[in-house]
Amino acid sequence: MSINNYPTSTDIEAAHNRIKDYIHNTAILSSKLLNKTSGANLFFKCENFQKVGAFKYRGASNAILKLKERNNSIKAVATHSSGNHAQALALAARTHGLEAHIVMPKTAPIVKQNAVNGYGAKVYLCEPTLQAREDTLKDVVKQTNAYFVHPYNNYDIIEAQATAAKELIEKHSNLDYIIAPVGGGGLLSGTLLATHYFSSKTKVIAAEPIGADDAFRSFKAKKFFPSENPNTIADGLLTSLGDKTFPIIMDYLHDIYTVSDEEIIEAMKLIWERMKIIIEPSSAVVFAVVLKNRRIFENKKIGLILSGGNIDLTKIPF
Amino acid sequence: MSINNYPTSTDIEAAHNRIKDYIHNTAILSSKLLNKTSGANLFFKCENFQKVGAFKYRGASNAILKLKERNNSIKAVATHSSGNHAQALALAARTHGLEAHIVMPKTAPIVKQNAVNGYGAKVYLCEPTLQAREDTLKDVVKQTNAYFVHPYNNYDIIEAQATAAKELIEKHSNLDYIIAPVGGGGLLSGTLLATHYFSSKTKVIAAEPIGADDAFRSFKAKKFFPSENPNTIADGLLTSLGDKTFPIIMDYLHDIYTVSDEEIIEAMKLIWERMKIIIEPSSAVVFAVVLKNRRIFENKKIGLILSGGNIDLTKIPF
Repeated sequence: MSINNYPTSTDIEAAHNRIKDYIHNTAILSSKLLNKTSGANLFFKCENFQKVGAFKYRGASNAILKLKERNNSIKAVATHSSGNHAQALALAARTHGLEAHIVMPKTAPIVKQNAVNGYGAKVYLCEPTLQAREDTLKDVVKQTNAYFVHPYNNYDIIEAQATAAKELIEKHSNLDYIIAPVGGGGLLSGTLLATHYFSSKTKVIAAEPIGADDAFRSFKAKKFFPSENPNTIADGLLTSLGDKTFPIIMDYLHDIYTVSDEEIIEAMKLIWERMKIIIEPSSAVVFAVVLKNRRIFENKKIGLILSGGNIDLTKIPF
Repeated sequence: MSINNYPTSTDIEAAHNRIKDYIHNTAILSSKLLNKTSGANLFFKCENFQKVGAFKYRGASNAILKLKERNNSIKAVATHSSGNHAQALALAARTHGLEAHIVMPKTAPIVKQNAVNGYGAKVYLCEPTLQAREDTLKDVVKQTNAYFVHPYNNYDIIEAQATAAKELIEKHSNLDYIIAPVGGGGLLSGTLLATHYFSSKTKVIAAEPIGADDAFRSFKAKKFFPSENPNTIADGLLTSLGDKTFPIIMDYLHDIYTVSDEEIIEAMKLIWERMKIIIEPSSAVVFAVVLKNRRIFENKKIGLILSGGNIDLTKIPF
């Protein structure tokens, strides 16, 4: 008997079966050079190779497929996002024959607006405040009768983000640690559940930028703090935790470490140069945590979730 | 009975066995987006993930191991190179307990000099002319008694560069085409031999920058032309063919196509953005050829050899 309503191991397995023909079981890469640099044995789960370039496609695919199972007459989905969730929902909607309505702040880069448009979604621009985003979304949902798919505070999303860690565990057993980045906590809470169910001896560590350390403060104080005026290059990790992600984090997280933007950029540069793969700053946070805490991670077997690879190549920070 | 002294299929298999514990059997990646963009079915052999970031490590490893087999008292190797062969020979020498003496033009970027130094090789700077490189190398060889390992005009090198195509063929049978870049022709002639022996129905295409089209002119005229004043962003493809690579190319190459630097940069950008991997301009030439010749390559199953990923990240050309 479960005393909470978190997704179960069966839910995660069902989500994986539901989405597996639509997603990539992404590569897990190692680098002898980065093992030497860090003193640890590292396994990088490359969600930068996922469709739309980020793990978000797992959650968006599962949410849409479950909506269709529950209500076959559903026609449209909607969300507000300036980032990877927008692209993920747009492509997943098109793949499964739904319309997508995406509210974006008018400050979102034109390349991102174009990417969402390119997947056939309708884009609605609004002022760059949370209030404006929520108000505009409410109007859009009213007009279109679309179903709102929250980017992370949603069990359909969480149980699917869990499948990245599940795939990692299936290929590499006996990991001492898995490290995941934390923004709203969708990927982290999914990672926590998958690890709890499928590799219970593995400890999960969260990695967060100092400039957006609401999860760090919340976890340490055991009390929810929202993200206020976040300022970091890791633009996927700006949001607050949600009432579905925070409890999972409090129940299962082993510890959380923060790193500066300088440390994030240095880690990102090492991965680009040595592994020859493109990751976004939000992905580099996990490796920065390893480099900064050698005392803890030395000689350990560690899975690192590289969350995505979407970055404006004309604005590389090194 | 062979009427030439090219490496045989047995030589290539032996080279593969000799080096396989020291190299990476690199990943072969596909991209639905780039398949859609090109209209073809593409399999990218990722030698950018090879040790030292380039296929050159295959040849350098084989050459050194064979030298040691032939003469166990050998102490040192030498070469002149400003690029990937220098790093490859330096690391392979260190791995197998030999000294490496590398002649580099004094115009070579400090980062490349440092990389070679970092592998424990001794660097000798000279004027940036072929004459100065050869003269300096001669002096170095005389002083050190090191054995000169030519970067491509050398069967020990060629039979090992062949193993990249061999691995590609072992994973993906029935390729219509394999496309390899051509500079001095070490990778291309190895690819030609491996394909001839192990996948004889597959046609090999060479890809060359217009600004260094000596192989194109030589192949079409059936007569060797040296590379004169080459000018292209593909800095791994500047050199002339050799008397060991040119005959193999004349015997087995199906055709050769050239592309402009603009086309190389566009192809490179697409691979970075869509596949999230870092390749150098010399690698992008093969994909540029596919994009430019849709009429020929549409609906074909094509292996592309991405030769390396070493690029100064502060000087990205887009």
